[in-house]
Amino acid sequence: MEHRYDIAIIGSGPAGISAAINAKIRNKDIIIFGNEELSDKLIKAPKISNYIGLPDITGLELKSKFQNHLDVMGINITFEKINSIYAMGQYFALAVNEKMYEAKAVVLATGVEYTKPLKGEQEFLGRGVGYCATCDAPLYKDKTVTVIGYNKEAEKEANYVSELASKVYYIPVYRENPNLKDNVEVIQDKVLEIYGTDKVERVVLKYKSISTDGVFVLKSSIAPDQLMPGLILETGHIKVDVNMRTNIEGCFAAGDCTGKPYQYMKAVGQGQIAALNAVSYLDK
Amino acid sequence: MEHRYDIAIIGSGPAGISAAINAKIRNKDIIIFGNEELSDKLIKAPKISNYIGLPDITGLELKSKFQNHLDVMGINITFEKINSIYAMGQYFALAVNEKMYEAKAVVLATGVEYTKPLKGEQEFLGRGVGYCATCDAPLYKDKTVTVIGYNKEAEKEANYVSELASKVYYIPVYRENPNLKDNVEVIQDKVLEIYGTDKVERVVLKYKSISTDGVFVLKSSIAPDQLMPGLILETGHIKVDVNMRTNIEGCFAAGDCTGKPYQYMKAVGQGQIAALNAVSYLDK
Repeated sequence: MEHRYDIAIIGSGPAGISAAINAKIRNKDIIIFGNEELSDKLIKAPKISNYIGLPDITGLELKSKFQNHLDVMGINITFEKINSIYAMGQYFALAVNEKMYEAKAVVLATGVEYTKPLKGEQEFLGRGVGYCATCDAPLYKDKTVTVIGYNKEAEKEANYVSELASKVYYIPVYRENPNLKDNVEVIQDKVLEIYGTDKVERVVLKYKSISTDGVFVLKSSIAPDQLMPGLILETGHIKVDVNMRTNIEGCFAAGDCTGKPYQYMKAVGQGQIAALNAVSYLDK
Repeated sequence: MEHRYDIAIIGSGPAGISAAINAKIRNKDIIIFGNEELSDKLIKAPKISNYIGLPDITGLELKSKFQNHLDVMGINITFEKINSIYAMGQYFALAVNEKMYEAKAVVLATGVEYTKPLKGEQEFLGRGVGYCATCDAPLYKDKTVTVIGYNKEAEKEANYVSELASKVYYIPVYRENPNLKDNVEVIQDKVLEIYGTDKVERVVLKYKSISTDGVFVLKSSIAPDQLMPGLILETGHIKVDVNMRTNIEGCFAAGDCTGKPYQYMKAVGQGQIAALNAVSYLDK
């Protein structure tokens, strides 16, 4: 079994970074999961005028200040994507495909997914639609699978599925050219609907329709209650109290995933509150 | 009557500054009350390691970054101290001694008073003990008054009281030499107790005891529920929900006055939430 961390932080946007830095200052053994860009949303911001102390900064400049702060603190981000988190009572088990991590407390700082669900996505969830290709791939041995990828990370999962499935279609929902194995067929088209009767039968695109047994919808972030079974949401966001506690003991949340306003300063403030309350929780 | 502002912000610490900048960005007509140092607590901080993006900054450096941000936004702080705020239904009336301001919404960012109440202070509140010398001075015409001043601002109030009272004692609770009128007697001693039976009779000091009719305890900030009658507190802090709403409609709060942890980043985050929710409140 892997090393058990004090606090696992999911997400490397402003809320996650703030939680990591504050927890590290309190001498906790932390792990933070995220990506090299820290936050896709942040780096695209042309000008931020309300990050107090740094007027009129660009998103890229702020990102490099965040990265510098992480470097000063000796915090390295783990570039892995958590698929599921399970509350085990005394600790949390965090799954990255077949790999497991353990932590005594968790801070969710997963941001918000701005894309609407596809037509049929929610209806057929668990009946052909899935969010973790590497987890569910064995179900589709020698079958036809369609991967709808919202970012380049989805390509790895498609390649993995192609080792088991007899046929894999890959529909990229981004501009860059996908880098896939030869046996994965790329379809450049717009998804209109995931269609079926009892279970998924085909994916309806703008210019054609493909028969498929399963569809993996791989977005940048999955819904929080899918990430962590039992987590209570409220109007699509993680329900928290003023101390950033969720309904699950030892699990805290911060930033956009807890609700509007979607703002950087609010996110760092909540990341701090979440981390400090996680520290108090551990010290009890 | 004075001009009616959209939002009045009480306090120029991190929470108040953040609220002011965010409200100004949303084109609201604001007024922010505070002092030249912005925050006494901030400027004394030797090193701050968890203001995300600005690692290992001193309090003074951060203060000058805050001031620069205010300058960039064209925000001037009003160097006046609000004594009382009254919820009038459609608006709030804010009193600075005899002067009145009006605002449609209020953000309280008053910080926390770290000094414990003096022995007898709460017991005799309204029975000889008061927090606003200029407000209550007329009650002590030709009587003996003791002013316990926690900062140099209290000296102005003592001078004012000395025009009406027959005798004024001034007990400074700080290091600098007070600058007072000749008829104010300075006592350099430690207050042990405000003593009386039905009402205040004397102030017991370490080395002597003085007879007095009234005592003004002039701290940097007054308790929030004394500042704003009807405001609900919880364990000494202003009770707020996740949107930084207090129990009074149109009144929001942010920063240390809303509870622990007492942290700069949390304060700026809450200041932003309070301001944006005040903006939504106004737009309704």
